[in-house]
Amino acid sequence: MNKEEKRPLILISNDDGIDAPGIRSLVDFVSDMGEVWVVAPSTVQSGKGHAITLDGIIKVEKATPRNGSVVEYRCAGTPADCVKIAKNSLLPRVPDICLSGINHGSNAAINVIYSGTMAAAIEAGVEGIPAIGFSLCDLDWDAPMGHLREYIRLITHTALEKGLPAHTVLNVNFPTGEIKGMKVCRQAATRWEKEFEKRKNPRGGDYYWMVGHPICLEENGEDTDHWALSHGYVSIVPTTYDLTAHSSMSVIEKWEL
Amino acid sequence: MNKEEKRPLILISNDDGIDAPGIRSLVDFVSDMGEVWVVAPSTVQSGKGHAITLDGIIKVEKATPRNGSVVEYRCAGTPADCVKIAKNSLLPRVPDICLSGINHGSNAAINVIYSGTMAAAIEAGVEGIPAIGFSLCDLDWDAPMGHLREYIRLITHTALEKGLPAHTVLNVNFPTGEIKGMKVCRQAATRWEKEFEKRKNPRGGDYYWMVGHPICLEENGEDTDHWALSHGYVSIVPTTYDLTAHSSMSVIEKWEL
Repeated sequence: MNKEEKRPLILISNDDGIDAPGIRSLVDFVSDMGEVWVVAPSTVQSGKGHAITLDGIIKVEKATPRNGSVVEYRCAGTPADCVKIAKNSLLPRVPDICLSGINHGSNAAINVIYSGTMAAAIEAGVEGIPAIGFSLCDLDWDAPMGHLREYIRLITHTALEKGLPAHTVLNVNFPTGEIKGMKVCRQAATRWEKEFEKRKNPRGGDYYWMVGHPICLEENGEDTDHWALSHGYVSIVPTTYDLTAHSSMSVIEKWEL
Repeated sequence: MNKEEKRPLILISNDDGIDAPGIRSLVDFVSDMGEVWVVAPSTVQSGKGHAITLDGIIKVEKATPRNGSVVEYRCAGTPADCVKIAKNSLLPRVPDICLSGINHGSNAAINVIYSGTMAAAIEAGVEGIPAIGFSLCDLDWDAPMGHLREYIRLITHTALEKGLPAHTVLNVNFPTGEIKGMKVCRQAATRWEKEFEKRKNPRGGDYYWMVGHPICLEENGEDTDHWALSHGYVSIVPTTYDLTAHSSMSVIEKWEL
Protein backbone atom coordinates (compact mmCIF):
# COMPACT_ATOMS: atom_id res chain seq x y z
CA MET A 1 0.00 0.00 0.00
CA ASN A 2 1.51 3.34 -0.95
CA LYS A 3 1.31 6.52 1.10
CA GLU A 4 -1.62 7.90 -0.88
CA GLU A 5 -3.76 4.83 -0.13
CA LYS A 6 -3.22 5.17 3.60
CA ARG A 7 -4.86 8.60 3.81
CA PRO A 8 -8.33 8.34 5.32
CA LEU A 9 -11.24 8.66 2.93
CA ILE A 10 -13.52 11.38 4.29
CA LEU A 11 -17.09 11.64 2.96
CA ILE A 12 -18.74 15.03 3.53
CA SER A 13 -22.42 15.85 3.17
CA ASN A 14 -24.96 18.23 4.69
CA ASP A 15 -28.58 19.37 4.42
CA ASP A 16 -28.13 23.04 3.55
CA GLY A 17 -26.92 22.11 0.09
CA ILE A 18 -23.51 21.81 -1.54
CA ASP A 19 -23.06 25.58 -1.93
CA ALA A 20 -23.82 26.51 1.71
CA PRO A 21 -21.01 28.30 3.59
CA GLY A 22 -21.15 25.67 6.34
CA ILE A 23 -20.14 22.73 4.15
CA ARG A 24 -17.49 24.83 2.40
CA SER A 25 -15.95 25.62 5.81
CA LEU A 26 -16.08 21.96 6.84
CA VAL A 27 -14.31 20.85 3.66
CA ASP A 28 -11.69 23.55 4.15
CA PHE A 29 -11.10 22.60 7.81
CA VAL A 30 -10.37 18.91 7.16
CA SER A 31 -9.00 18.93 3.59
CA ASP A 32 -5.44 18.10 4.70
CA MET A 33 -6.60 15.25 6.97
CA GLY A 34 -7.44 12.84 4.18
CA GLU A 35 -8.93 12.36 0.75
CA VAL A 36 -12.11 14.44 0.89
CA TRP A 37 -15.12 13.49 -1.25
CA VAL A 38 -18.20 15.69 -1.13
CA VAL A 39 -21.61 14.21 -2.02
CA ALA A 40 -24.20 16.76 -1.00
CA PRO A 41 -27.71 17.86 -1.95
CA SER A 42 -27.99 20.26 -4.86
CA THR A 43 -30.70 22.21 -3.01
CA VAL A 44 -31.58 23.13 0.59
CA GLN A 45 -32.89 20.05 2.44
CA SER A 46 -33.41 21.51 5.93
CA GLY A 47 -35.98 19.68 8.03
CA LYS A 48 -36.06 16.71 5.67
CA GLY A 49 -35.34 14.33 8.56
CA HIS A 50 -34.45 10.83 7.40
CA ALA A 51 -36.44 11.08 4.18
CA ILE A 52 -35.30 8.93 1.26
CA THR A 53 -36.41 8.98 -2.37
CA LEU A 54 -38.38 5.74 -2.75
CA ASP A 55 -40.48 6.46 -5.81
CA GLY A 56 -38.57 8.91 -7.94
CA ILE A 57 -35.26 9.30 -9.71
CA ILE A 58 -32.20 10.82 -8.09
CA LYS A 59 -30.02 12.80 -10.50
CA VAL A 60 -26.33 13.02 -9.66
CA GLU A 61 -23.75 15.21 -11.39
CA LYS A 62 -20.06 15.74 -10.86
CA ALA A 63 -19.11 19.21 -9.68
CA THR A 64 -15.83 21.09 -9.56
CA PRO A 65 -13.71 20.27 -6.48
CA ARG A 66 -13.39 23.23 -4.08
CA ASN A 67 -11.70 24.02 -0.75
CA GLY A 68 -9.20 21.22 -1.26
CA SER A 69 -11.76 18.49 -1.92
CA VAL A 70 -10.79 15.72 -4.33
CA VAL A 71 -14.17 14.97 -5.89
CA GLU A 72 -17.58 16.57 -5.51
CA TYR A 73 -21.04 15.42 -6.58
CA ARG A 74 -24.29 17.38 -6.55
CA CYS A 75 -27.16 15.03 -5.75
CA ALA A 76 -30.78 16.00 -6.38
CA GLY A 77 -31.97 14.05 -3.35
CA THR A 78 -32.13 14.15 0.42
CA PRO A 79 -29.13 14.02 2.78
CA ALA A 80 -29.80 10.31 3.45
CA ASP A 81 -29.97 9.69 -0.32
CA CYS A 82 -26.57 11.39 -0.71
CA VAL A 83 -24.85 9.12 1.79
CA LYS A 84 -26.53 6.00 0.40
CA ILE A 85 -25.52 6.80 -3.18
CA ALA A 86 -22.03 7.87 -2.14
CA LYS A 87 -21.35 4.62 -0.29
CA ASN A 88 -23.05 2.31 -2.77
CA SER A 89 -22.28 3.85 -6.13
CA LEU A 90 -19.77 6.71 -6.10
CA LEU A 91 -16.92 6.26 -3.61
CA PRO A 92 -13.87 4.13 -4.52
CA ARG A 93 -14.10 2.30 -1.14
CA VAL A 94 -15.99 2.47 2.15
CA PRO A 95 -15.09 5.83 3.72
CA ASP A 96 -13.18 5.94 7.00
CA ILE A 97 -15.47 8.64 8.32
CA CYS A 98 -18.51 10.66 7.28
CA LEU A 99 -18.81 14.29 8.36
CA SER A 100 -22.06 16.22 7.92
CA GLY A 101 -22.57 19.98 8.17
CA ILE A 102 -21.60 22.47 9.33
CA ASN A 103 -25.34 23.03 9.67
CA HIS A 104 -26.63 26.58 9.84
CA GLY A 105 -28.78 26.24 12.97
CA SER A 106 -29.12 24.01 16.03
CA ASN A 107 -29.59 20.26 15.76
CA ALA A 108 -29.54 19.84 19.53
CA ALA A 109 -32.34 18.48 21.73
CA ILE A 110 -35.47 17.35 19.79
CA ASN A 111 -34.20 19.05 16.61
CA VAL A 112 -32.15 15.92 15.95
CA ILE A 113 -35.22 14.01 14.73
CA TYR A 114 -36.05 16.63 12.06
CA SER A 115 -32.46 17.17 10.99
CA GLY A 116 -31.22 16.28 7.53
CA THR A 117 -27.66 16.95 8.70
CA MET A 118 -27.97 14.28 11.36
CA ALA A 119 -29.82 11.94 8.97
CA ALA A 120 -26.72 11.96 6.75
CA ALA A 121 -24.54 11.07 9.74
CA ILE A 122 -27.00 8.43 10.97
CA GLU A 123 -27.26 6.87 7.50
CA ALA A 124 -23.48 6.52 7.47
CA GLY A 125 -23.67 4.97 10.95
CA VAL A 126 -26.19 2.41 9.71
CA GLU A 127 -23.66 1.52 6.99
CA GLY A 128 -21.04 0.93 9.68
CA ILE A 129 -19.13 4.14 8.95
CA PRO A 130 -18.02 6.34 11.89
CA ALA A 131 -19.97 9.58 11.49
CA ILE A 132 -20.30 13.03 13.02
CA GLY A 133 -22.82 15.80 12.43
CA PHE A 134 -21.63 19.36 13.13
CA SER A 135 -24.02 22.28 13.64
CA LEU A 136 -23.65 25.91 14.67
CA CYS A 137 -26.57 27.36 16.64
CA ASP A 138 -26.85 30.33 14.31
CA LEU A 139 -29.19 30.45 11.29
CA ASP A 140 -27.27 33.33 9.71
CA TRP A 141 -25.44 32.06 6.62
CA ASP A 142 -22.81 34.74 7.20
CA ALA A 143 -22.10 33.62 10.78
CA PRO A 144 -18.32 33.34 11.32
CA MET A 145 -17.10 29.72 11.54
CA GLY A 146 -13.30 30.01 11.52
CA HIS A 147 -13.10 29.54 15.30
CA LEU A 148 -14.69 26.07 14.93
CA ARG A 149 -11.76 24.75 12.89
CA GLU A 150 -9.64 23.40 15.75
CA TYR A 151 -12.61 21.80 17.54
CA ILE A 152 -13.77 20.03 14.39
CA ARG A 153 -10.27 18.83 13.57
CA LEU A 154 -9.72 17.52 17.10
CA ILE A 155 -13.06 15.65 17.24
CA THR A 156 -12.57 14.23 13.73
CA HIS A 157 -8.99 13.20 14.44
CA THR A 158 -10.01 11.46 17.69
CA ALA A 159 -12.90 9.63 16.02
CA LEU A 160 -10.58 8.44 13.22
CA GLU A 161 -8.04 7.26 15.77
CA LYS A 162 -10.31 5.64 18.35
CA GLY A 163 -13.40 4.78 16.28
CA LEU A 164 -16.92 5.07 17.66
CA PRO A 165 -18.92 2.62 19.78
CA ALA A 166 -21.30 0.28 17.90
CA HIS A 167 -24.53 1.84 16.61
CA THR A 168 -23.33 5.29 17.68
CA VAL A 169 -22.70 8.53 15.77
CA LEU A 170 -21.94 11.96 17.24
CA ASN A 171 -24.21 14.99 17.23
CA VAL A 172 -21.93 18.00 17.80
CA ASN A 173 -23.45 21.46 18.25
CA PHE A 174 -21.53 24.70 18.68
CA PRO A 175 -22.90 27.57 20.78
CA THR A 176 -22.97 31.15 19.60
CA GLY A 177 -20.39 33.46 21.16
CA GLU A 178 -17.23 32.46 22.98
CA ILE A 179 -16.61 28.73 23.49
CA LYS A 180 -15.75 27.65 27.05
CA GLY A 181 -15.05 24.00 26.30
CA MET A 182 -16.69 20.75 25.19
CA LYS A 183 -19.16 18.53 27.06
CA VAL A 184 -20.46 15.03 26.39
CA CYS A 185 -24.23 15.32 26.91
CA ARG A 186 -27.56 13.61 26.60
CA GLN A 187 -30.33 14.95 24.33
CA ALA A 188 -32.51 17.42 26.26
CA ALA A 189 -36.28 16.82 26.31
CA THR A 190 -37.78 19.71 24.33
CA ARG A 191 -40.55 20.27 21.83
CA TRP A 192 -41.75 23.07 19.56
CA GLU A 193 -44.69 25.23 20.63
CA LYS A 194 -47.18 27.58 18.91
CA GLU A 195 -46.12 26.15 15.65
CA PHE A 196 -48.47 27.43 12.98
CA GLU A 197 -49.63 30.62 11.38
CA LYS A 198 -52.89 30.13 9.49
CA ARG A 199 -53.60 32.14 6.35
CA LYS A 200 -56.40 32.37 3.83
CA ASN A 201 -55.73 31.32 0.27
CA PRO A 202 -57.01 34.14 -1.96
CA ARG A 203 -58.49 31.40 -4.17
CA GLY A 204 -60.26 29.78 -1.19
CA GLY A 205 -59.25 27.44 1.62
CA ASP A 206 -56.67 27.62 4.36
CA TYR A 207 -52.95 27.11 4.44
CA TYR A 208 -50.34 27.12 7.18
CA TRP A 209 -46.76 28.24 7.75
CA MET A 210 -44.68 26.42 10.34
CA VAL A 211 -43.33 28.91 12.87
CA GLY A 212 -43.05 28.42 16.65
CA HIS A 213 -40.24 28.13 19.14
CA PRO A 214 -38.69 25.32 21.21
CA ILE A 215 -39.59 24.83 24.88
CA CYS A 216 -37.96 22.69 27.55
CA LEU A 217 -40.01 19.82 28.95
CA GLU A 218 -37.83 19.24 32.00
CA GLU A 219 -35.61 21.13 34.34
CA ASN A 220 -32.60 22.21 32.32
CA GLY A 221 -30.25 19.48 33.58
CA GLU A 222 -26.51 20.16 33.45
CA ASP A 223 -26.04 16.85 31.65
CA THR A 224 -28.09 17.98 28.61
CA ASP A 225 -27.05 19.48 25.29
CA HIS A 226 -29.46 22.35 25.91
CA TRP A 227 -27.67 23.30 29.13
CA ALA A 228 -24.21 22.99 27.56
CA LEU A 229 -25.10 25.22 24.60
CA SER A 230 -26.80 27.86 26.71
CA HIS A 231 -23.71 28.00 28.94
CA GLY A 232 -21.15 28.39 26.16
CA TYR A 233 -20.05 24.76 25.76
CA VAL A 234 -19.87 22.63 22.64
CA SER A 235 -22.37 19.76 23.10
CA ILE A 236 -21.38 16.26 21.97
CA VAL A 237 -24.30 13.82 22.11
CA PRO A 238 -23.56 10.16 21.30
CA THR A 239 -26.57 9.38 19.12
CA THR A 240 -28.05 6.05 18.09
CA TYR A 241 -30.42 4.70 15.45
CA ASP A 242 -31.54 1.85 17.70
CA LEU A 243 -34.80 3.54 18.65
CA THR A 244 -35.79 0.75 21.05
CA ALA A 245 -36.92 2.20 24.38
CA HIS A 246 -35.10 -0.62 26.18
CA SER A 247 -36.18 0.49 29.65
CA SER A 248 -39.85 0.44 28.56
CA MET A 249 -39.81 -3.16 27.33
CA SER A 250 -40.58 -4.68 30.73
CA VAL A 251 -43.49 -2.24 31.19
CA ILE A 252 -45.13 -3.31 27.93
CA GLU A 253 -44.37 -6.98 28.65
CA LYS A 254 -46.54 -6.64 31.77
CA TRP A 255 -49.51 -5.83 29.52
CA GLU A 256 -49.61 -9.59 28.84
CA LEU A 257 -51.01 -9.19 25.33
CA MET B 1 -68.92 16.25 31.92
CA ASN B 2 -71.50 14.42 29.84
CA LYS B 3 -71.08 10.99 28.33
CA GLU B 4 -70.10 12.34 24.92
CA GLU B 5 -67.16 14.29 26.36
CA LYS B 6 -65.79 11.22 28.09
CA ARG B 7 -65.21 9.36 24.85
CA PRO B 8 -61.51 9.29 23.98
CA LEU B 9 -60.39 11.57 21.17
CA ILE B 10 -58.49 9.41 18.68
CA LEU B 11 -56.26 11.09 16.07
CA ILE B 12 -55.46 8.93 13.07
CA SER B 13 -52.79 9.59 10.44
CA ASN B 14 -50.51 7.59 8.13
CA ASP B 15 -47.94 7.97 5.38
CA ASP B 16 -49.66 6.15 2.51
CA GLY B 17 -52.18 8.97 2.18
CA ILE B 18 -55.74 9.49 3.35
CA ASP B 19 -57.25 7.26 0.64
CA ALA B 20 -55.04 4.20 1.30
CA PRO B 21 -56.87 0.99 2.27
CA GLY B 22 -54.72 0.69 5.41
CA ILE B 23 -55.92 3.92 7.02
CA ARG B 24 -59.52 3.20 6.00
CA SER B 25 -59.28 -0.18 7.79
CA LEU B 26 -57.73 1.43 10.88
CA VAL B 27 -60.51 4.02 11.10
CA ASP B 28 -63.10 1.29 10.67
CA PHE B 29 -61.53 -0.92 13.36
CA VAL B 30 -61.55 1.72 16.12
CA SER B 31 -64.46 3.98 15.13
CA ASP B 32 -66.66 2.81 18.05
CA MET B 33 -63.84 3.26 20.59
CA GLY B 34 -63.96 7.05 20.64
CA GLU B 35 -64.30 10.22 18.63
CA VAL B 36 -62.12 9.58 15.58
CA TRP B 37 -60.47 12.49 13.76
CA VAL B 38 -58.40 11.78 10.67
CA VAL B 39 -55.67 14.21 9.62
CA ALA B 40 -53.64 12.49 6.94
CA PRO B 41 -51.47 13.34 3.93
CA SER B 42 -53.31 14.02 0.68
CA THR B 43 -50.61 12.10 -1.22
CA VAL B 44 -48.32 9.12 -0.66
CA GLN B 45 -45.52 10.05 1.77
CA SER B 46 -43.73 6.70 2.10
CA GLY B 47 -40.09 6.98 3.12
CA LYS B 48 -40.45 10.62 4.15
CA GLY B 49 -39.01 9.85 7.60
CA HIS B 50 -39.47 12.68 10.05
CA ALA B 51 -39.48 15.38 7.36
CA ILE B 52 -41.37 18.61 8.13
CA THR B 53 -42.27 21.50 5.85
CA LEU B 54 -40.02 24.32 7.05
CA ASP B 55 -39.99 26.62 4.05
CA GLY B 56 -43.26 26.13 2.23
CA ILE B 57 -46.98 26.36 2.77
CA ILE B 58 -49.10 23.45 3.96
CA LYS B 59 -52.59 23.39 2.47
CA VAL B 60 -55.28 21.73 4.57
CA GLU B 61 -58.83 20.96 3.46
CA LYS B 62 -61.76 19.31 5.17
CA ALA B 63 -62.82 15.98 3.67
CA THR B 64 -65.95 13.88 3.98
CA PRO B 65 -65.94 11.64 7.08
CA ARG B 66 -65.75 7.91 6.22
CA ASN B 67 -65.69 4.56 8.04
CA GLY B 68 -67.31 6.10 11.10
CA SER B 69 -64.84 8.95 11.49
CA VAL B 70 -66.16 12.25 12.88
CA VAL B 71 -63.96 14.70 11.00
CA GLU B 72 -61.33 14.26 8.28
CA TYR B 73 -58.72 16.62 6.91
CA ARG B 74 -56.50 16.17 3.86
CA CYS B 75 -53.14 17.80 4.51
CA ALA B 76 -50.70 18.55 1.68
CA GLY B 77 -47.71 17.87 3.93
CA THR B 78 -45.70 15.10 5.53
CA PRO B 79 -46.98 12.72 8.23
CA ALA B 80 -45.16 14.75 10.92
CA ASP B 81 -46.76 17.94 9.52
CA CYS B 82 -50.19 16.28 9.81
CA VAL B 83 -49.80 15.49 13.49
CA LYS B 84 -48.33 18.91 14.27
CA ILE B 85 -51.16 20.77 12.52
CA ALA B 86 -53.81 18.45 13.98
CA LYS B 87 -52.62 19.00 17.54
CA ASN B 88 -51.88 22.72 17.22
CA SER B 89 -54.58 23.98 14.91
CA LEU B 90 -57.36 21.51 14.11
CA LEU B 91 -58.37 19.27 17.03
CA PRO B 92 -60.80 20.52 19.69
CA ARG B 93 -58.48 19.30 22.47
CA VAL B 94 -55.30 17.26 22.94
CA PRO B 95 -56.09 13.75 21.69
CA ASP B 96 -56.05 10.82 24.08
CA ILE B 97 -54.18 8.70 21.59
CA CYS B 98 -52.68 8.92 18.10
CA LEU B 99 -52.79 5.89 15.81
CA SER B 100 -50.81 5.79 12.57
CA GLY B 101 -51.22 3.33 9.71
CA ILE B 102 -52.04 0.67 8.90
CA ASN B 103 -48.92 0.98 6.78
CA HIS B 104 -48.64 -1.08 3.63
CA GLY B 105 -45.20 -2.60 4.25
CA SER B 106 -42.85 -3.32 7.13
CA ASN B 107 -41.64 -0.63 9.50
CA ALA B 108 -39.69 -3.12 11.60
CA ALA B 109 -35.92 -3.15 12.21
CA ILE B 110 -34.02 -0.25 10.55
CA ASN B 111 -37.10 0.68 8.46
CA VAL B 112 -38.35 2.64 11.48
CA ILE B 113 -35.93 5.51 10.76
CA TYR B 114 -37.24 5.99 7.19
CA SER B 115 -40.88 5.54 8.10
CA GLY B 116 -43.43 8.33 7.75
CA THR B 117 -45.95 6.15 9.60
CA MET B 118 -43.70 5.99 12.63
CA ALA B 119 -42.78 9.68 12.29
CA ALA B 120 -46.48 10.52 12.80
CA ALA B 121 -46.56 8.36 15.94
CA ILE B 122 -43.24 9.76 17.19
CA GLU B 123 -44.36 13.35 16.57
CA ALA B 124 -47.43 12.66 18.72
CA GLY B 125 -45.16 11.16 21.37
CA VAL B 126 -43.04 14.32 21.40
CA GLU B 127 -46.27 16.24 22.04
CA GLY B 128 -46.95 14.01 25.05
CA ILE B 129 -49.70 12.01 23.31
CA PRO B 130 -49.70 8.18 23.64
CA ALA B 131 -49.08 6.90 20.13
CA ILE B 132 -48.92 3.68 18.15
CA GLY B 133 -47.82 2.96 14.60
CA PHE B 134 -49.33 -0.11 12.92
CA SER B 135 -47.83 -1.74 9.84
CA LEU B 136 -48.52 -4.91 7.86
CA CYS B 137 -45.47 -6.54 6.25
CA ASP B 138 -47.16 -6.66 2.86
CA LEU B 139 -46.75 -3.96 0.20
CA ASP B 140 -49.86 -5.12 -1.68
CA TRP B 141 -52.62 -2.50 -1.28
CA ASP B 142 -55.18 -5.29 -1.64
CA ALA B 143 -53.69 -7.37 1.20
CA PRO B 144 -56.47 -8.52 3.56
CA MET B 145 -56.47 -6.68 6.91
CA GLY B 146 -59.70 -7.80 8.59
CA HIS B 147 -57.85 -10.30 10.80
CA LEU B 148 -55.85 -7.43 12.35
CA ARG B 149 -58.98 -5.84 13.83
CA GLU B 150 -58.95 -7.57 17.21
CA TYR B 151 -55.19 -7.12 17.73
CA ILE B 152 -55.38 -3.42 16.97
CA ARG B 153 -58.40 -2.93 19.21
CA LEU B 154 -56.74 -4.78 22.10
CA ILE B 155 -53.43 -2.88 21.85
CA THR B 156 -55.24 0.47 21.48
CA HIS B 157 -57.59 -0.28 24.38
CA THR B 158 -54.70 -1.29 26.65
CA ALA B 159 -52.68 1.81 25.74
CA LEU B 160 -55.71 4.03 26.47
CA GLU B 161 -56.25 2.30 29.79
CA LYS B 162 -52.66 2.01 31.03
CA GLY B 163 -50.93 4.84 29.15
CA LEU B 164 -47.40 4.52 27.81
CA PRO B 165 -44.06 5.04 29.57
CA ALA B 166 -42.45 8.49 29.21
CA HIS B 167 -40.82 9.25 25.83
CA THR B 168 -42.14 5.96 24.43
CA VAL B 169 -44.42 5.13 21.50
CA LEU B 170 -45.16 1.69 20.08
CA ASN B 171 -44.03 0.32 16.72
CA VAL B 172 -46.40 -2.58 15.94
CA ASN B 173 -45.77 -4.75 12.87
CA PHE B 174 -47.97 -7.60 11.66
CA PRO B 175 -46.49 -10.60 9.86
CA THR B 176 -47.93 -12.01 6.67
CA GLY B 177 -49.86 -15.26 7.03
CA GLU B 178 -51.31 -16.74 10.18
CA ILE B 179 -50.64 -14.89 13.44
CA LYS B 180 -49.29 -17.01 16.31
CA GLY B 181 -49.34 -14.31 18.98
CA MET B 182 -47.71 -11.03 20.01
CA LYS B 183 -44.19 -10.35 21.25
CA VAL B 184 -42.57 -7.30 22.85
CA CYS B 185 -39.26 -6.93 21.00
CA ARG B 186 -36.24 -4.79 20.42
CA GLN B 187 -35.41 -3.30 17.01
CA ALA B 188 -33.25 -5.74 15.01
CA ALA B 189 -29.96 -4.46 13.58
CA THR B 190 -30.42 -4.48 9.80
CA ARG B 191 -29.53 -2.32 6.83
CA TRP B 192 -30.36 -2.14 3.13
CA GLU B 193 -27.93 -3.55 0.58
CA LYS B 194 -27.31 -3.19 -3.17
CA GLU B 195 -29.48 -0.16 -3.13
CA PHE B 196 -29.18 1.56 -6.49
CA GLU B 197 -29.81 0.97 -10.15
CA LYS B 198 -27.92 3.46 -12.29
CA ARG B 199 -29.42 4.64 -15.58
CA LYS B 200 -28.42 7.03 -18.34
CA ASN B 201 -30.50 10.13 -18.86
CA PRO B 202 -31.26 10.26 -22.62
CA ARG B 203 -30.47 13.99 -22.39
CA GLY B 204 -27.11 13.32 -20.71
CA GLY B 205 -25.94 12.50 -17.21
CA ASP B 206 -26.73 9.75 -14.73
CA TYR B 207 -29.66 9.10 -12.47
CA TYR B 208 -30.45 6.44 -9.90
CA TRP B 209 -33.42 4.40 -8.66
CA MET B 210 -33.39 3.18 -5.08
CA VAL B 211 -33.88 -0.61 -5.03
CA GLY B 212 -32.08 -3.11 -2.79
CA HIS B 213 -33.08 -5.44 0.00
CA PRO B 214 -32.63 -5.54 3.79
CA ILE B 215 -29.93 -7.68 5.40
CA CYS B 216 -29.41 -8.68 9.03
CA LEU B 217 -26.28 -7.35 10.75
CA GLU B 218 -26.42 -9.74 13.69
CA GLU B 219 -27.56 -13.21 14.54
CA ASN B 220 -31.33 -13.17 14.29
CA GLY B 221 -31.97 -12.95 18.05
CA GLU B 222 -35.29 -14.23 19.38
CA ASP B 223 -35.77 -10.90 21.18
CA THR B 224 -35.87 -8.90 17.91
CA ASP B 225 -38.78 -7.72 15.78
CA HIS B 226 -37.18 -9.39 12.78
CA TRP B 227 -37.29 -12.79 14.50
CA ALA B 228 -40.86 -12.31 15.71
CA LEU B 229 -42.17 -11.35 12.27
CA SER B 230 -40.35 -14.15 10.46
CA HIS B 231 -41.84 -16.64 12.95
CA GLY B 232 -45.45 -15.48 12.66
CA TYR B 233 -45.65 -13.17 15.67
CA VAL B 234 -46.83 -9.57 15.86
CA SER B 235 -43.82 -7.45 16.92
CA ILE B 236 -44.33 -4.65 19.43
CA VAL B 237 -41.23 -2.46 19.80
CA PRO B 238 -41.33 0.27 22.46
CA THR B 239 -39.74 3.11 20.51
CA THR B 240 -38.21 6.36 21.71
CA TYR B 241 -37.24 9.72 20.28
CA ASP B 242 -34.47 10.18 22.83
CA LEU B 243 -31.71 9.23 20.42
CA THR B 244 -28.99 9.51 23.08
CA ALA B 245 -26.74 6.43 23.01
CA HIS B 246 -26.65 6.47 26.82
CA SER B 247 -24.29 3.50 27.08
CA SER B 248 -21.78 5.23 24.78
CA MET B 249 -21.54 8.43 26.84
CA SER B 250 -18.81 7.11 29.16
CA VAL B 251 -16.77 5.94 26.13
CA ILE B 252 -16.78 9.41 24.57
CA GLU B 253 -16.14 11.05 27.95
CA LYS B 254 -12.87 9.10 28.08
CA TRP B 255 -11.72 10.96 24.96
CA GLU B 256 -11.06 13.90 27.33
CA LEU B 257 -11.73 16.52 24.69
